[in-house]
Amino acid sequence: MDEWLVRVRSAGLAIAVALLAAAPFSAPAIATPDALQSWNEGDAKRAITDFVAAVTTEGSADFVPPGERIATFDNDGTLWSEQPMYVQLAFALDRVRAMAPDHPEWKDKEPFKSVLANDIKSIAASGQRSIAEIVAATHAGMTTAEFEKIVTGWIATAKNPKTGKLDEAMIFQPMLELIAYLKANGFDVFIVSGGGVEFMRPWAERTYGIPAENIIGSSIKMKYHSDATNPTIVRLPEVDFVDDGAGKPVGIQKFIGKRPIAAFGNSDGDFEMLEWTTTGPGRRLGMIVHHDDALREFAYDRTSEFGRLDKALNTAPQRGWNVVSMKNDWSRVFPDKEGQSAPRQ
Amino acid sequence: MDEWLVRVRSAGLAIAVALLAAAPFSAPAIATPDALQSWNEGDAKRAITDFVAAVTTEGSADFVPPGERIATFDNDGTLWSEQPMYVQLAFALDRVRAMAPDHPEWKDKEPFKSVLANDIKSIAASGQRSIAEIVAATHAGMTTAEFEKIVTGWIATAKNPKTGKLDEAMIFQPMLELIAYLKANGFDVFIVSGGGVEFMRPWAERTYGIPAENIIGSSIKMKYHSDATNPTIVRLPEVDFVDDGAGKPVGIQKFIGKRPIAAFGNSDGDFEMLEWTTTGPGRRLGMIVHHDDALREFAYDRTSEFGRLDKALNTAPQRGWNVVSMKNDWSRVFPDKEGQSAPRQ
Repeated sequence: MDEWLVRVRSAGLAIAVALLAAAPFSAPAIATPDALQSWNEGDAKRAITDFVAAVTTEGSADFVPPGERIATFDNDGTLWSEQPMYVQLAFALDRVRAMAPDHPEWKDKEPFKSVLANDIKSIAASGQRSIAEIVAATHAGMTTAEFEKIVTGWIATAKNPKTGKLDEAMIFQPMLELIAYLKANGFDVFIVSGGGVEFMRPWAERTYGIPAENIIGSSIKMKYHSDATNPTIVRLPEVDFVDDGAGKPVGIQKFIGKRPIAAFGNSDGDFEMLEWTTTGPGRRLGMIVHHDDALREFAYDRTSEFGRLDKALNTAPQRGWNVVSMKNDWSRVFPDKEGQSAPRQ
Repeated sequence: MDEWLVRVRSAGLAIAVALLAAAPFSAPAIATPDALQSWNEGDAKRAITDFVAAVTTEGSADFVPPGERIATFDNDGTLWSEQPMYVQLAFALDRVRAMAPDHPEWKDKEPFKSVLANDIKSIAASGQRSIAEIVAATHAGMTTAEFEKIVTGWIATAKNPKTGKLDEAMIFQPMLELIAYLKANGFDVFIVSGGGVEFMRPWAERTYGIPAENIIGSSIKMKYHSDATNPTIVRLPEVDFVDDGAGKPVGIQKFIGKRPIAAFGNSDGDFEMLEWTTTGPGRRLGMIVHHDDALREFAYDRTSEFGRLDKALNTAPQRGWNVVSMKNDWSRVFPDKEGQSAPRQ
């Protein structure tokens, strides 16, 4: 986009500049009804368009200059489906199965034994330590380039075990429209996810239109190996940063260094990000995607193993956070590339 | 810029589009001789313009799409002066002096005793541990907002002890031009500095035109304190990440997730960043600013306490890294706002 603009300028198109000067500078850049076409008319859609109009209208008390228009999105459950389990967990379990032939000892060693026996309940019950062991075994001990290749290969065919659809097809069309709408209105859009940053980067740029450098997530430590012709960065089996809960505002400060003016989440893991965003000075937008659509996606909240939404749902009204009903606020859930079926009203 | 472009598009300026389509698409966006006017004609300037022309020319074997045009700059000694000591060290010492009335015990306690006695030699000799103690005392224990305010207030009047000029006036004009030139050619420009990220962010956006989210540096740990109306992020006296030497490629991977195609440094602390950048596939640019200009700035390299340049200087020829002579390659060193004296040829 910038490059195109530079060509406009270097070509000396004074005519364009003159015409622009005449354009109403106070109007939001793109606020056509079509920009959010998968959003039904209602409170949620209105909260978004009102907010964007307010912060982009020069001279308005709520005006925010473009460089400060920071919007952050959770990923799992906010931009794509997280049921019946986080996609990255499915990836880790698949990796255990793929690596098992080289690890005969895993047959008798937990948590790998349960994974190989497909006993997901036992893994879930065995807690954080088991998950950490699985992550260490499957996400570390290779170079960053090798890991990127593994993720890229895996995601190309990875399917949701319930729906049989590709995981990458189970992204939320209304959120894609929201991201594009915010970007068109001068927002810098970031993903702030509890998921692993290097698990997201290989596909998220293509899938969501959010570049790798705008993706913040959990990470493990890394080490640089100097070499005159082929240096590498190796992934170590040690947690570096957990970008979840109270870690999200810290991640935002570490990686962006600016306080967001809009934040979008779907679970209690997003509580602190929503709080940090909406308690800042000036006009703010906090939004929670509520999964209440068993027919088109999944219905879950207070008792779910993945993406539990309880405290944030209780607090939303008093904090002024908007709760989006997937069922009522979205006319379409998925991009549905195969067939482009008419959106459900 | 993007917002302006969006207005161009939404205004439906088909005429501009038509004219653009006729423009030579393979030419680099801005390659006027004026863009790098403080660079004398010579190998260094030619290395830059040849590189940019190659990676921005569509159809060229060296073409790199805009999203992958990542350029990283060291800060101290590369974008501004680092003699007679790092600016951040001067800040830390000033903070010790300012905080001393509340810490009577410092009068008898090293390293604070030496700071208060202005015995810089003893501090330098006392090593890493002392520096860490000074940083912990002066950079931690307050909120991120408070620290930002302290830095902003300090930098407004901070002067170089040798020249008496404002530190912010001792930035390198040729590097400002280089940053603008790269950005105009579709590059994403990042600072990758051993300095503290939260020491740089409050002024670097204004000073260099590089936004806070594109600044990578060393950091201390932080903790979020939840509160319904006034949450805070507190800076802890514990090192989180050291973005120097072999830490620089790791920082690049953590924060950008893409390998740079151009890197600019000035000391051995930039060796690994230069190596990581220039060993990647395709056309690459590695550049070292050599401080050989005692008359206009400072002359130092192999034995300097700050910004030592030894190994990287030896290795530069065989690695294909360009060494920039401040004395010969730069017609002007500082922006020199007071007076705009004619550049020295």
